[in-house]
Amino acid sequence: MFAETTIAPTCSLAQDITPEITLASQWFDTLRERSRSALGVTRASFGEGEQMAHDLMAEQATRLGLEQRVDAAGNLYLTLPGRDRSLPAIMTGSHMDTVPDGGNFDGAAGVVAGMAMLARWVRAGLVPQRDITVMAVRAEELSWFPAPYAGSRAAFGLLQSHELDDCLRPDTGLSLFHHMQAAGFAPERVRAGEKQLDPARIHCFLELHIEQGPFLVQEGLPVGIVTGIRGNLRYKHSRILGQYAHAGAEPRRSRHDAVMAGAEFVQRLEALWLELEQEGKDLVCTVGQFYTDAKVHTMTKVPGELRFTMDIRSQDNALLLEIDQRLRVIAQDISARRGVVIDLGDFTNARPGLIHAGLHAQLLSCAAALKIPHVAMASGAGHDSAVFSQQGIPTAMVFVRNEHGSHNPDEAMEIADFAEGLRVLIAAVEHIDEQG
Amino acid sequence: MFAETTIAPTCSLAQDITPEITLASQWFDTLRERSRSALGVTRASFGEGEQMAHDLMAEQATRLGLEQRVDAAGNLYLTLPGRDRSLPAIMTGSHMDTVPDGGNFDGAAGVVAGMAMLARWVRAGLVPQRDITVMAVRAEELSWFPAPYAGSRAAFGLLQSHELDDCLRPDTGLSLFHHMQAAGFAPERVRAGEKQLDPARIHCFLELHIEQGPFLVQEGLPVGIVTGIRGNLRYKHSRILGQYAHAGAEPRRSRHDAVMAGAEFVQRLEALWLELEQEGKDLVCTVGQFYTDAKVHTMTKVPGELRFTMDIRSQDNALLLEIDQRLRVIAQDISARRGVVIDLGDFTNARPGLIHAGLHAQLLSCAAALKIPHVAMASGAGHDSAVFSQQGIPTAMVFVRNEHGSHNPDEAMEIADFAEGLRVLIAAVEHIDEQG
Repeated sequence: MFAETTIAPTCSLAQDITPEITLASQWFDTLRERSRSALGVTRASFGEGEQMAHDLMAEQATRLGLEQRVDAAGNLYLTLPGRDRSLPAIMTGSHMDTVPDGGNFDGAAGVVAGMAMLARWVRAGLVPQRDITVMAVRAEELSWFPAPYAGSRAAFGLLQSHELDDCLRPDTGLSLFHHMQAAGFAPERVRAGEKQLDPARIHCFLELHIEQGPFLVQEGLPVGIVTGIRGNLRYKHSRILGQYAHAGAEPRRSRHDAVMAGAEFVQRLEALWLELEQEGKDLVCTVGQFYTDAKVHTMTKVPGELRFTMDIRSQDNALLLEIDQRLRVIAQDISARRGVVIDLGDFTNARPGLIHAGLHAQLLSCAAALKIPHVAMASGAGHDSAVFSQQGIPTAMVFVRNEHGSHNPDEAMEIADFAEGLRVLIAAVEHIDEQG
Repeated sequence: MFAETTIAPTCSLAQDITPEITLASQWFDTLRERSRSALGVTRASFGEGEQMAHDLMAEQATRLGLEQRVDAAGNLYLTLPGRDRSLPAIMTGSHMDTVPDGGNFDGAAGVVAGMAMLARWVRAGLVPQRDITVMAVRAEELSWFPAPYAGSRAAFGLLQSHELDDCLRPDTGLSLFHHMQAAGFAPERVRAGEKQLDPARIHCFLELHIEQGPFLVQEGLPVGIVTGIRGNLRYKHSRILGQYAHAGAEPRRSRHDAVMAGAEFVQRLEALWLELEQEGKDLVCTVGQFYTDAKVHTMTKVPGELRFTMDIRSQDNALLLEIDQRLRVIAQDISARRGVVIDLGDFTNARPGLIHAGLHAQLLSCAAALKIPHVAMASGAGHDSAVFSQQGIPTAMVFVRNEHGSHNPDEAMEIADFAEGLRVLIAAVEHIDEQG
């Protein structure tokens, strides 16, 4: 299955997609108009914006005559039925929520692409051999609920009971369970671990997504074919406890300065990163939050406390676990020397997402057949694809160039680049379906 | 004047002060009872707590039959008239405001000591040669108005017009001008630069204050005789501008990470401190506030902005100005290398307060004559004394041991230690007055 095929892709459906690009542009515009916020676009997980997006896709599915299903967690499935409904389905899709004041395309591009692809089949009057299903996944952005891939994990019965209760949406203070229920879904069935999707019924999963970094922009290429999805170590509640003291009177030797200790810790993390990068390892390290206590800190006090987060990503999970060990040694060394307590706190470890080599090769051959300039590249961000991959489902991803990165109002995917990514997706699905 | 005297101090008034210690204890208790706040003691500058403290001292002055004067800025002067009123006065005192949720003794101890000293003269039925004046200074704590030594500078006509308008009290958002007027004083006269005190009419200024660091506690001594008051450089609005980016997708080489840049800056500040300390320089450096933007930062974004403060103190002002230059070079280097902008922003420079050598020697000889264990030491904190010293008035300070530092609810001056400091003050004033 999905071995690098000797049959060249026919790419018939990917040849003329102007009407579908017009449709997709309208959908993007509508999404943006209906979810504008102060600085960008906001579609909260299980909030109005996300629901609006799901409703828009469902409405288009009705026009296209697709089958529709909503699962217990609120994930939406839009299916073009195949000739042989006993065959496992080809699935594609992504999420429709955004970070607060984010951009319009992160997530939505993948669902819109899937729907545009089905519109192309419908316009051609063709019926695929297998079911082709577009999934609009719920709650992918961690800004709302700190449960990674909440929607796609719920679909496979993998969301933990405590996550439903412990994950609170910052803007409401209410739990994931509450929001899922208030939006009309059945979190008690999710809690019971009920599977909404059977991996054995999924032939493969393809996700189109905007690139979240500047790599394709720097390379001057519209499309990337993903080689692997970086896993991560995440420390959400690291802190340093020192001792507040008078800034003018406390001698250096008796200080327990949380900021000086924190600065050394970050510098040593950066040095470790450089060292491993020079060994050729795939790695990015971020200390995204780093702050003294706004209620207590002043210019004239030695800082007694500091809180910070770490997000460390690599395609190599063994490397991530080694880094955790080395950071603990560094923390102990600094703590002992400076008389502070560096407590890294709990961490989560999302394992890297493995891309299916054969499926990856098929995407490459479709891009080549279509003469679309492209490059093979790692995904720095996590994606719902990682969950499908961990279920043993052959999974691959198409990236579309996107200026200014994602998770911000300035993200700027050109529709012409989207069209190139969509053509790769259309060709790959057609080709996979042809192979039976 | 104040040459190290060959006449041994008589120390007659400092021999029996039990009744004055009882009085002082009652005053401290009353102050605490009347200014308790959620976590400690709060006497806001030009607020109710400070006024209560001034009222309490004025009431005691009435009982003791002292002369009273309140100046245009609200500073209170309580005077025991001397036999020759044409002679410049011996002055002592300190401030009565506290930081929010601070302790009971920072500032108040110096005013209470002055009043206890005058009570001792009154009980002895003695009349000094010169006027002896206790000053209760307004608005010393920067937590309320960021104008250093607002009360004592106003007394000398040194408060700048813009400070009256620009300094806003954080709890009310209203200006120093407003609060000074609302409390019943005459800020328009302060704005006009009217002098409330004539330096030529002040023989010397002595300030008793709790120590604000752990030095006397570590040394096991009740009293310190101050050698100099550290000046400071203060950067209240330093910041680093980088660029927000995706934590997983942005490659290291194209990051503009404000936290990584900030960590390097703090490490290099610390290295500079160590270097100068090894050269024997007097220096303490504090980065008291250091924070990513709570509205924007997340675990999964490369941080694009960081704000911080610096408070750098030394008895050597030339060293402070040299450090400013060196920090700017470091900031430029890091900015260029990391593609960020490190903007140190405006700074204030409070010059070191010079202690009068002869007066310092007299305090030492009084402590020695009274067999009070003591040590000569620098003051890490700024004090109103610095303003008197800069007016060319011979100035000196007595420190009293104080556990847990100041500016916090746990400050803990033992009344027995206060008594030792008070005895040094009483003996010194008596001795200075005897010398004519």
